[in-house]
Amino acid sequence: MKTLLIKGTTLNGKVVDVLIKGNKFEDIAPNINTIADEEIDARGTAIIPPFYNGHCHAAMTLLRGYADDLPLDVWLNEHIWPAEDKMVPRDIYVGTRLAVLEMIKSGTVFFNDMYGMVEESIKACEEMGIRAQIGISLMDRMGEKDINGRFEFLHSYKRSELVTLSVAPHAPYTVSKDLFRRCVKEAEKANVMIHTHLSETKKEIDDCMAEHGVSPVELLDSLGILTEKTALAHVVHTSDSDADILAKRKCAIVTNPASNMKLCSGAFKFDQHVSRGSKVIIGTDGTSSNNNLSMIEEMKFAALLSKVNDKPTTAPAEMVFDMATKRGAEAFGIDAGEIKVGKLADALLLDLSNERLVPNFNLISNIVYSADSRCIDTVICNGQVLMRGGKVKDEDQIIADAIEISKKFI
Amino acid sequence: MKTLLIKGTTLNGKVVDVLIKGNKFEDIAPNINTIADEEIDARGTAIIPPFYNGHCHAAMTLLRGYADDLPLDVWLNEHIWPAEDKMVPRDIYVGTRLAVLEMIKSGTVFFNDMYGMVEESIKACEEMGIRAQIGISLMDRMGEKDINGRFEFLHSYKRSELVTLSVAPHAPYTVSKDLFRRCVKEAEKANVMIHTHLSETKKEIDDCMAEHGVSPVELLDSLGILTEKTALAHVVHTSDSDADILAKRKCAIVTNPASNMKLCSGAFKFDQHVSRGSKVIIGTDGTSSNNNLSMIEEMKFAALLSKVNDKPTTAPAEMVFDMATKRGAEAFGIDAGEIKVGKLADALLLDLSNERLVPNFNLISNIVYSADSRCIDTVICNGQVLMRGGKVKDEDQIIADAIEISKKFI
Repeated sequence: MKTLLIKGTTLNGKVVDVLIKGNKFEDIAPNINTIADEEIDARGTAIIPPFYNGHCHAAMTLLRGYADDLPLDVWLNEHIWPAEDKMVPRDIYVGTRLAVLEMIKSGTVFFNDMYGMVEESIKACEEMGIRAQIGISLMDRMGEKDINGRFEFLHSYKRSELVTLSVAPHAPYTVSKDLFRRCVKEAEKANVMIHTHLSETKKEIDDCMAEHGVSPVELLDSLGILTEKTALAHVVHTSDSDADILAKRKCAIVTNPASNMKLCSGAFKFDQHVSRGSKVIIGTDGTSSNNNLSMIEEMKFAALLSKVNDKPTTAPAEMVFDMATKRGAEAFGIDAGEIKVGKLADALLLDLSNERLVPNFNLISNIVYSADSRCIDTVICNGQVLMRGGKVKDEDQIIADAIEISKKFI
Repeated sequence: MKTLLIKGTTLNGKVVDVLIKGNKFEDIAPNINTIADEEIDARGTAIIPPFYNGHCHAAMTLLRGYADDLPLDVWLNEHIWPAEDKMVPRDIYVGTRLAVLEMIKSGTVFFNDMYGMVEESIKACEEMGIRAQIGISLMDRMGEKDINGRFEFLHSYKRSELVTLSVAPHAPYTVSKDLFRRCVKEAEKANVMIHTHLSETKKEIDDCMAEHGVSPVELLDSLGILTEKTALAHVVHTSDSDADILAKRKCAIVTNPASNMKLCSGAFKFDQHVSRGSKVIIGTDGTSSNNNLSMIEEMKFAALLSKVNDKPTTAPAEMVFDMATKRGAEAFGIDAGEIKVGKLADALLLDLSNERLVPNFNLISNIVYSADSRCIDTVICNGQVLMRGGKVKDEDQIIADAIEISKKFI
């Protein structure tokens, strides 16, 4: 197995060498004297776990800045949906590559996705070496034939080391009870997670109460959707009893603060869920409602939005960092998110001489509240170096393709 | 006069050359064929105005990450103030240089400052070539002798091309009516602006009402502080009648959303002031409560915090960008903030191939909602190139000094 030796980096304030063998951390010690296949001089860096993006729509990056600052219905009906209707498989491939490039550059090595034409997204991830859980999106309006085809693909797909699938019913307001019930069965059969949007807006709650007489959380619970293999995006509007259900079912709750702020969905009730021991993690949502995929930025939004609606001690930096790293990986069954022997070798090397990390009284505070992508020198995923000195393989081509293909939307 | 020719950049979507002569834009045209003292190949970039930081405490950057996520009184009394008590002039010099480095790297060419030992801050700004308005801080507890000395310095200082002073009474809860009245006179005499904190927290309003029977805005108005030569930081808690006063007096209102969120001060009422035609601009506050000085990030916080408490059309990207650039410059009497012949030559060159700016459907949206400092290639202030290819003069020394000097606070 290939070995990679990282020399002289800093882990929790101590200078160490880190040896990666294959896709795992093999040894971490002050001085490792071995001849490795590849060696990185990492003096002046800190090694930290990378970020795991709990919810996004990667290929949608092709629509970054396409329409902003509009009422939700105008934004969706007159801009986003008509543009998405024009998308063909190559757009998904090019869009996902652009998104993956952006994620690598900002230190993310995994994303939980929901979009269409998943073969293209899978191809982009495998080529670029990033982890992903790609959701098979489902909505009633797709019709039976399309839905059946999607489930067929799910069962025919052989999960790789990097890419798994999920069953992704869109949301309670676009998916019937019957389709939700089918999702539960098909996900069980395929042994994959379920990924859905839940309780994003006040309107969703009101409409659900009017139609079903229960909250969206209660509705999905009655359908068997809520288990520890479920990732729920947004979850903004939750009563205490909704929060009790989510905690009991051990769902992954993915907060997307920038999107919730930009679309005026509301503020996630951080302490309501954390105080119940729920599995809260962080996601960026798609670039149409953010408009980037930076988990560094998203951590700060998560911490600060939680504070302004509560108290300064809410959502402390260490907790938010944990949600974006270790807990994010855990939520998707990835044995990573910590720099520890035996764990999957996912890591970032931060440039400690970057002014945003100076002084270094508290590295985690600096990462959450001060850093931006320029602080990241190296990105390692599954033992492979995806970025070194800020450079990612093929980036010029990825950018050129994205610029070219975006012209069709103008 | 020295000339600088920027070849092949993009201005508002059109490819142009930009000629700078001395400290002003001399010509902007598709093809300028002149031999300049210095030429920049700017193909693949966009030229935009840089950022003007409406409120900060630059030297405080030395305390980045020193204490976070604590109740306000514990944070100030047990951490920040004791650390500040240890500061000597060299700390202020080193801290300001670190801050200025960070500001240049994130595209800021001016900051409105309030801290102590101003000679050191002035020296740092002059050496590094950045614009600043350095506030002479004043609080009752400084005592008459210190206060007199500060005013003497104010009147003895000869403003330079880059650095002006202001009179900076700290806040209504630390400055007596008499001292505020004296500030009005001394500022008039020196022909400088006044810079103060105002209506930052709910407690400030309640205490002011209890002590003076009026709101902090009303109090300062009764003392003659509020004029078009006044910059007010925070201004979070304002009644409609407070907002009427601020609009009538034409004060610059500086919103600091990240700080207000992190310290749980509250959310700035964006539309309350904009709808009255008030001069709203943007500042980062100090790094102890942010924890960076990035105006790029601050624009996004300003836009998104305003939206989540209102509607998606509040604080649109173009308006927020204007506040951080043109209106920011205007508020401090700097004839810059626009890429226009005759204006002072302050500019940024953005790298249009940076993934955060791709696709480029709307550059301003990309800057406000997606960009980070890595998108900035070149920073020009007053006709001088302060950063090129992401590199700033002496940056290694600035960082080394800051790391070394910060050890005293551990």
